[in-house]
Amino acid sequence: MKRIGVITSGGDAPGMNAALRAVVRSALHRGVEVLGFHHGWRGVISEEVTPLNTKSVGGIINLGGTILRSARCREFREPEGRAQAMEVLRDNRVEGLVVIGGDGSLTGAKVLMEEHDIAVMGVPGSIDNDIAGTDYAIGFDTAVNTARDAIDKVRDTAYSHDRVFVIEVMGRNNGFIAVDVALACGAEGVLIPEFPFSIAEICENLKEQRSKGKSSSIVVVAEGAGKGNEVCDFIVKNTGLEARAVVLGHMQRGGSPSAFDRVLALRLGALATNRLLSGYRGEMAGLVGNRLVTHPLSYVLSQTKTVDAERLLLLGVMAQ
Amino acid sequence: MKRIGVITSGGDAPGMNAALRAVVRSALHRGVEVLGFHHGWRGVISEEVTPLNTKSVGGIINLGGTILRSARCREFREPEGRAQAMEVLRDNRVEGLVVIGGDGSLTGAKVLMEEHDIAVMGVPGSIDNDIAGTDYAIGFDTAVNTARDAIDKVRDTAYSHDRVFVIEVMGRNNGFIAVDVALACGAEGVLIPEFPFSIAEICENLKEQRSKGKSSSIVVVAEGAGKGNEVCDFIVKNTGLEARAVVLGHMQRGGSPSAFDRVLALRLGALATNRLLSGYRGEMAGLVGNRLVTHPLSYVLSQTKTVDAERLLLLGVMAQ
Amino acid sequence: MKRIGVITSGGDAPGMNAALRAVVRSALHRGVEVLGFHHGWRGVISEEVTPLNTKSVGGIINLGGTILRSARCREFREPEGRAQAMEVLRDNRVEGLVVIGGDGSLTGAKVLMEEHDIAVMGVPGSIDNDIAGTDYAIGFDTAVNTARDAIDKVRDTAYSHDRVFVIEVMGRNNGFIAVDVALACGAEGVLIPEFPFSIAEICENLKEQRSKGKSSSIVVVAEGAGKGNEVCDFIVKNTGLEARAVVLGHMQRGGSPSAFDRVLALRLGALATNRLLSGYRGEMAGLVGNRLVTHPLSYVLSQTKTVDAERLLLLGVMAQ
Amino acid sequence: MKRIGVITSGGDAPGMNAALRAVVRSALHRGVEVLGFHHGWRGVISEEVTPLNTKSVGGIINLGGTILRSARCREFREPEGRAQAMEVLRDNRVEGLVVIGGDGSLTGAKVLMEEHDIAVMGVPGSIDNDIAGTDYAIGFDTAVNTARDAIDKVRDTAYSHDRVFVIEVMGRNNGFIAVDVALACGAEGVLIPEFPFSIAEICENLKEQRSKGKSSSIVVVAEGAGKGNEVCDFIVKNTGLEARAVVLGHMQRGGSPSAFDRVLALRLGALATNRLLSGYRGEMAGLVGNRLVTHPLSYVLSQTKTVDAERLLLLGVMAQ
Repeated sequence: MKRIGVITSGGDAPGMNAALRAVVRSALHRGVEVLGFHHGWRGVISEEVTPLNTKSVGGIINLGGTILRSARCREFREPEGRAQAMEVLRDNRVEGLVVIGGDGSLTGAKVLMEEHDIAVMGVPGSIDNDIAGTDYAIGFDTAVNTARDAIDKVRDTAYSHDRVFVIEVMGRNNGFIAVDVALACGAEGVLIPEFPFSIAEICENLKEQRSKGKSSSIVVVAEGAGKGNEVCDFIVKNTGLEARAVVLGHMQRGGSPSAFDRVLALRLGALATNRLLSGYRGEMAGLVGNRLVTHPLSYVLSQTKTVDAERLLLLGVMAQ
Repeated sequence: MKRIGVITSGGDAPGMNAALRAVVRSALHRGVEVLGFHHGWRGVISEEVTPLNTKSVGGIINLGGTILRSARCREFREPEGRAQAMEVLRDNRVEGLVVIGGDGSLTGAKVLMEEHDIAVMGVPGSIDNDIAGTDYAIGFDTAVNTARDAIDKVRDTAYSHDRVFVIEVMGRNNGFIAVDVALACGAEGVLIPEFPFSIAEICENLKEQRSKGKSSSIVVVAEGAGKGNEVCDFIVKNTGLEARAVVLGHMQRGGSPSAFDRVLALRLGALATNRLLSGYRGEMAGLVGNRLVTHPLSYVLSQTKTVDAERLLLLGVMAQ
Repeated sequence: MKRIGVITSGGDAPGMNAALRAVVRSALHRGVEVLGFHHGWRGVISEEVTPLNTKSVGGIINLGGTILRSARCREFREPEGRAQAMEVLRDNRVEGLVVIGGDGSLTGAKVLMEEHDIAVMGVPGSIDNDIAGTDYAIGFDTAVNTARDAIDKVRDTAYSHDRVFVIEVMGRNNGFIAVDVALACGAEGVLIPEFPFSIAEICENLKEQRSKGKSSSIVVVAEGAGKGNEVCDFIVKNTGLEARAVVLGHMQRGGSPSAFDRVLALRLGALATNRLLSGYRGEMAGLVGNRLVTHPLSYVLSQTKTVDAERLLLLGVMAQ
Repeated sequence: MKRIGVITSGGDAPGMNAALRAVVRSALHRGVEVLGFHHGWRGVISEEVTPLNTKSVGGIINLGGTILRSARCREFREPEGRAQAMEVLRDNRVEGLVVIGGDGSLTGAKVLMEEHDIAVMGVPGSIDNDIAGTDYAIGFDTAVNTARDAIDKVRDTAYSHDRVFVIEVMGRNNGFIAVDVALACGAEGVLIPEFPFSIAEICENLKEQRSKGKSSSIVVVAEGAGKGNEVCDFIVKNTGLEARAVVLGHMQRGGSPSAFDRVLALRLGALATNRLLSGYRGEMAGLVGNRLVTHPLSYVLSQTKTVDAERLLLLGVMAQ
């Protein structure tokens, strides 16, 4: 290969810039040129493209978001859109494409490869950590720390006013952020989409803990398991305790990436690129059990990942 | 005086613990004992009281919230409640009382003094900064930095997705947090309760800036000027731009206090205590123009404070 | 078992309090009492002891350092000291002991067990991450993030003044912190104890990069590989570039633990305790490949761990 | 005026980018062009120049350092250098110059004006806060918070190991950072250049506090008052206590500016520019007593500023 392309696609995640840095510098190191397409698949279709050199990715490792930006792209979901994207890639003599993004973006890469026989490689970026084939997706560790930091602050005021606080965190389909942040902040309860829970039981626990002298409490809710405000109202009605809800929202997506996410992003970005340049295709780079691996995209996209039940058990014991 | 009391009352603010430290150590330094009442006025009425020594206030200067906790107290609003509070203070041989809190708490102190002739001193603590007689209330600087930090993160994702973000910050009656955070984060617009604004104009500006190539924007709303979600919906309808709302909520109240708030709290807490022990009463300590001052509570409570218009003008020029 | 003891020993590490929380609540959950000895082995010998209940470990998960404190203890290195420690444990009817600490502390635990047949369990806490049998020791992730944050700040001034900065980080025997932080901050070079490096080569690279237009650079040195000041002087002499040294020092030990360290500490603390209460002894809890494991202390203490060479390779490519 | 120039000069300070943003947008708002010279006076002499538009200063308000960079410049200290600088300014049709920097940079501006009759305006940027005519220089608040954050972390390990820590902070000629950070972190002692102190007395206090049960202590030293290591050695010798030194160094210069510094920088940058464009010259913009002011550079440069003694008194009482 003489030239590859790279995009960041789907929801942005802290560490995407570090991954981009790794893709570009790994390719240049092997004498291969890199083109960056802006705004994900949309920029491929519309040929929003810039050549990337060593300097283009200097000074970005500490930046949240993605300098290539991202976007949703309906056209790419249609065969015509993908054909057009392929034409642009061909016109630009792009022989392989690294896609940094979540489930949807990787699906797009896989379909494009199947239809047009272009070599693609995936790098998992998702604060929700909902991508199979890797223990950690880029951005997850930072998002958990951002939520932890916010809840530590809320805990100050919960303590000062003897209140229950319900914190809604991101996680539409799973409870990865919710469970880790609940453990890390010493929460008294957690509600997540993929495991059963009983709000009634949580209310019982809150009342019992209060009777034993615990004066403030935190309940964490993954957005996929319920609305923070509704859970809060339920708790007020069923316990008589003073409660407030906080919805952390989009701040969980941003911020300077943690060291873990930066190192992870560099490793996965470099691995994907080196594999691509060595002739592999249709894979995603991942970290499984502290070891770098690659899986076929078809495998990755057919699996779902759920929170480790051990952590829920642990939370139950810790929340006494 | 041989013994004074101290309470933290009303909404908690970062730096209240530093103020408490200053009250306790200043009094002990002059050979005067200090009793801490828990949960504000409620703890005075119900005699929730602990003697405070040097060690009690060691290692707390960096903690958010208040180790004495706070609470609302309806009984104290009635003459009977205040009579009971006074009885408790008398029983505990408390000759003077330092009240760390906001407008409501200082009003309580003033009324108690008028009815029962007890020496009181106020220390202004309020993240909203809505207390007259001081340029800065304890907690404001920290709250602005917390909001700034959150918006810096949101800016990452706003940039990556070419979006407008509407951020609702605290401020029921004024725009102190909103304006400073809007300036500090380079926001494109701000809505505050005490000055006129036009959402229509903001929409026009957003559209115009977009047409000139600015791809993402931040609009800050003080809660007293509108709901973040509603402002967001309005913008979507009137500009066609993609927009999201984030409500920062209670995290603005917590967190380790900034250096500014710690130093301010120490200075005001020490001043209030020294004045009280020197025979003054019915005053609030404040910082005006970088100078420590005291004002009568009656003066402080009869004034209102509004955001400096110069900052709004500046914001208009900066948001080009 | 009806009663166990717990100590934190050796250099303090962020997350030790979270581990302590897990030990105490896991034991109480199984109906077993817990005694906390202060100041590590010293407090065992001198019987500095407090019973720990659920409340004792409430509100500490976010605190750096260790509420049980730590200390070095020469007496414990002698058989007489250990005999005395055992006597205190026996007098207090302690049937098992959880030791949270580094290599030295775990060695102490092993020897005590061998000499006096008491059940011990180890939990690895060390910002240096130099304990075999676990991919991550408690405190490492936080220390790396603290150093990363400091270097991100130094990078601002390096950039503004076109300077080389040499940053000395912790790591007497290995380069775990140095390598991760060098990757995470986009450093141009790293010097660590366990792999060969050439300062002369680093100087060549710095000069070459400068000639290609890179105007500022960061070189990270693990303390075991050289003094920051000396490396800095060498670079100045051999490149003619303007350089400064920064020694990060003890701030790397403190601070509120990261989410990763908190969750890790909870998991390892709970595992060690559950194993102890189930009749196992002489083990250390660890995380290997994202899986909880236990190893015999004898195994753990006979191994050494070195930085993954893949990361060094990666750094070379990234530092172009 | 139709065109002005702007430089950042001397030691970099967080908030300089915000000041730059204000200068550029204030000028453009009045229809005046702006040229940015890189590397301070050096870039004026060597004509390293770029036109700055609204976009040039977008997205920089949160960045530490200065995008225009800075440098020392010996040539500018000679009349020939300044003549050359003036020629470049004339060639570029620069009618006025805004200089963002410290004492030395402002002196340069004043001399250039006197020799060549060009309109200059100063904006005070200095983490040391050693510029008269303003209560706060840009960067000071951020530097104090950076030092505070580091010392809060050191405090964790000081507490865990019952140690004394000596922290050397910046401040060659004054103790602004040292005193504020000592107050904010509850330090037991502070050594600064402009007021007398007795290390022997500090040692006595440390011993006395230890005898009363205070187990760990922090002593802050401004670099102008002594070397951290030497103070540490003195304390060890004269008290027998375990002590360690930490030199915070250049990290105090960097980092994302605090909200206070951002707002201050915007206000001062805008004021200096508006005054310049209205025909004033030879002034520095400042904040005195929460009010925006301007002073003649001649006045500013003839004064020195020292720490407020009230804060030292307060520290003595707080450090019981």
